[in-house]
Amino acid sequence: MLEKFDHIGIAVRNLDEAISRYTALCGRGPDHLEEVTAQKVKVAMFDVGESRIELLMATTPDSPIAKFIDKHGEGMHHICFKVPNLEEALARMGAAGMEIISGASGEGVGGSRVAFLHPKSLMGVMVELVESA
Amino acid sequence: MLEKFDHIGIAVRNLDEAISRYTALCGRGPDHLEEVTAQKVKVAMFDVGESRIELLMATTPDSPIAKFIDKHGEGMHHICFKVPNLEEALARMGAAGMEIISGASGEGVGGSRVAFLHPKSLMGVMVELVESA
Repeated sequence: MLEKFDHIGIAVRNLDEAISRYTALCGRGPDHLEEVTAQKVKVAMFDVGESRIELLMATTPDSPIAKFIDKHGEGMHHICFKVPNLEEALARMGAAGMEIISGASGEGVGGSRVAFLHPKSLMGVMVELVESA
Repeated sequence: MLEKFDHIGIAVRNLDEAISRYTALCGRGPDHLEEVTAQKVKVAMFDVGESRIELLMATTPDSPIAKFIDKHGEGMHHICFKVPNLEEALARMGAAGMEIISGASGEGVGGSRVAFLHPKSLMGVMVELVESA
């Protein structure tokens, strides 16, 4: 089962400009800034209820976010759901025919344990799963 | 201020097939099915915490969802946030330079009052606002 909608990840070219626009949307500035070297991104997070908006800027040309923007332009990159147990969720989804891109070894924001499902399994949507701390 | 993340809208070609895949993701079937004639779509909603996944299938070739899929293929179409007062939110965002596509006259799922912000104001992301009932 999915515990909650954790965040929406948005690929942006210029983090400062994106923060300015999303500050206008949210009515206040970001709650968290971080560089995630494992994913080659700088992120800005805005809390919204129990979820967050995650703005992602590439820090290297070979960052997955740089490649995404080259191909699709800026925009929604992935959605992330929180699950109580990552291995259990991946086993259940794998058995249902979902293609898993990366197993439970991924490292996300704040050192969290994450995994990704392939967009072709979910009508073009890349889904990230994050395990509750 | 944004009250909560209401839903993620996902454009799909075949609603039955999409329901089957998202049932595998969520671990259970959809919570709500509806045809929204004003938006020319059939929708299936899956509750996740305080938010929802909204699968959208066009019911006519001139539906905004049909046009989106022709251009971009299946995938994430918009994100929606709940606000306490739609006019107040639109006035604040308009003053901050956001482009509003449709004012507070839109009719969404369950007869809710909705409005849309242009993707170019938000790094390629179409944002829907829905007023609390």
